[in-house]
Amino acid sequence: MPSPQLAIVGGGQLARMMQQAAIGLGVRIRLLAEAPDVSAAQVVPDHVVGDYTDLETLRTVVADAPVVTFDHEHVPPEHLQALQAEGHACRPGPHALLYAQDKAEMRTRLEALGAPCPRNATVSSADDLVAFGFPAVLKTTRGGYDGKGVWVVRSAADAQEAFASGRPLLAEELVDFRRELAALVARSPSGEVLAYPVVESRQADGVCAEVIAPAPDLDPELAAEARALAERIATELDVTGILAVELFETADGRLLVNELAMRPHNTGHWSIDGAVTSQFENHLRAVLDLPLGATDPRAPWSVMVNILGGAVEDLEAQRAVVLGAEPDVKIHLYGKSVKAGRKVGHVTAYGPDLDDVLARARRSAALLTDGVTHD
Amino acid sequence: MPSPQLAIVGGGQLARMMQQAAIGLGVRIRLLAEAPDVSAAQVVPDHVVGDYTDLETLRTVVADAPVVTFDHEHVPPEHLQALQAEGHACRPGPHALLYAQDKAEMRTRLEALGAPCPRNATVSSADDLVAFGFPAVLKTTRGGYDGKGVWVVRSAADAQEAFASGRPLLAEELVDFRRELAALVARSPSGEVLAYPVVESRQADGVCAEVIAPAPDLDPELAAEARALAERIATELDVTGILAVELFETADGRLLVNELAMRPHNTGHWSIDGAVTSQFENHLRAVLDLPLGATDPRAPWSVMVNILGGAVEDLEAQRAVVLGAEPDVKIHLYGKSVKAGRKVGHVTAYGPDLDDVLARARRSAALLTDGVTHD
Repeated sequence: MPSPQLAIVGGGQLARMMQQAAIGLGVRIRLLAEAPDVSAAQVVPDHVVGDYTDLETLRTVVADAPVVTFDHEHVPPEHLQALQAEGHACRPGPHALLYAQDKAEMRTRLEALGAPCPRNATVSSADDLVAFGFPAVLKTTRGGYDGKGVWVVRSAADAQEAFASGRPLLAEELVDFRRELAALVARSPSGEVLAYPVVESRQADGVCAEVIAPAPDLDPELAAEARALAERIATELDVTGILAVELFETADGRLLVNELAMRPHNTGHWSIDGAVTSQFENHLRAVLDLPLGATDPRAPWSVMVNILGGAVEDLEAQRAVVLGAEPDVKIHLYGKSVKAGRKVGHVTAYGPDLDDVLARARRSAALLTDGVTHD
Repeated sequence: MPSPQLAIVGGGQLARMMQQAAIGLGVRIRLLAEAPDVSAAQVVPDHVVGDYTDLETLRTVVADAPVVTFDHEHVPPEHLQALQAEGHACRPGPHALLYAQDKAEMRTRLEALGAPCPRNATVSSADDLVAFGFPAVLKTTRGGYDGKGVWVVRSAADAQEAFASGRPLLAEELVDFRRELAALVARSPSGEVLAYPVVESRQADGVCAEVIAPAPDLDPELAAEARALAERIATELDVTGILAVELFETADGRLLVNELAMRPHNTGHWSIDGAVTSQFENHLRAVLDLPLGATDPRAPWSVMVNILGGAVEDLEAQRAVVLGAEPDVKIHLYGKSVKAGRKVGHVTAYGPDLDDVLARARRSAALLTDGVTHD
């Protein structure tokens, strides 16, 4: 069998959707999967099951692959440095991934670039926190995601759990924000950078619930500023592939950077059905240093709603109900078993009327998650 | 590993593109591949390599799959009958596939339905052919495709090669046609039928070269007639999955049925990028008896151009050139090595202006096939 053109570390839904794009582009993928039947292992024949924290396993996976990319940001940087020293191109590279892995490093670097950030400081004691002030958001500098490793604290007493974790913590001001936005860009090693339309991301319990593309009623100047900011961060940090910059639009109309992700991102899933080139295709094109594809939207409005594990246990059976109810909504299932709150799929609707698009996407997601439409 | 929901016999590009749709729908596929590295085997982990004319091999593949569908129409009908007797749903079934496998049976059945066909007769000798009249098209009743097993004859002498083949032959009038059209429908076992817009198909050397969706300047009444005809044939023949009805639009403005195909068809590839639901997704939805998806076009015009093996041998290297030249054309490569005239991929362009869309699609295809744009 010919050598793969690309190795992907991690077998979650992001790698699964990369494979969908790879089929069209004719890109052969080798996958490192955490277990034999994880989401992407179901659809990538050339896969190895193993542990991404083990350097020998990583070496086996990337053996004859010139380029390596990632389903997540958790591969130890020293392993990536070793792979690079052995001639494999890690995209994004460990020097960039650092800023997605460590929130304190990210804040320091972004502030050095002049990128607008919430006021922040590393804190190692209650005294530090009192000195920082309340209310504050405490975050573990590493390993947090989807609301995990994040605490909103209004007094030193609120912070006991966070300090008890024994992990390095970053305190940030509790931002008074109007809404959350996300600016996605693709960047190739040659330096080509292309931004997607800025989207609005709505969270529930710290997890992305729905995304509206483009962000409704966004001041065009603020949209341009968000795109330029994401392009600049991608370039300055030498990110390759997709960079997602999660942003606050503050109550007084400014942008503040919330988080960075260096891989296809939940706030870009709408692009599979809603953009000329999906974030997954552009991630592949970027990491393989191919010219990037147009990021223009294909419809005035696209809305993506996540399917989180809910009352419906048999997604396959319920799929038929949703397909019957909404013949022009696109369903994406990740091949995962249902657990409460687990991301098991998403739906995307698009069209000329935002209220209609929102209603169709939400109705489909509710039907698929809970078996009812809530209306 | 959980059981597959669907077995696909045949590992060509049609099965490969079905897998792309299956990933989104969360449908697990098992594949019977002709060889270890054929187009679809590259992207379907759960595959068996074997011979589709061997019943035991077929039994192994479909073992725990409730439904079986096909990349091609060549599985022996007696095997399909055996599988059905053993409880597997073959979709389409052998009773329908017969009319895609045997052109004489197809003509007899279509004429019984009153579907418009070219004048035709089975011929077994030069005398029969002379009695039928000239010019005529001779076709082997079975096994012909892409111009193979087809002869245009203007005298008995022209027919020597055809008769020498020793195979049953059908003679048809040489139709004076304005152009070729195709009407695609999806039909589920429950009887739901949905038609795609009627397209124009342009051939070169008997092989589909490009497809324009919808067919330009097609009389709306003729378009409605073509759709209704395809829907009626699908229903009367009890086709499940995609049925493609290839049609002549005659010089005097009538429709005549040319060929039937009972699987996703080259004239429907535009729908991946150009329709709300691709023919591949609707084929899966149909054979699994799921509700069908909307067949509406997403752009005023879509043009698909086939990539046939040409001067470019290294498609992967040339891919970068095309992606750079045309950032909003969609490339589909099938993972096949280049041989002269072999279908190795296709490109699709779409947009509001037909001349522009045609130009972009043709330029991309020429670049990918021959390395030059011909303009």
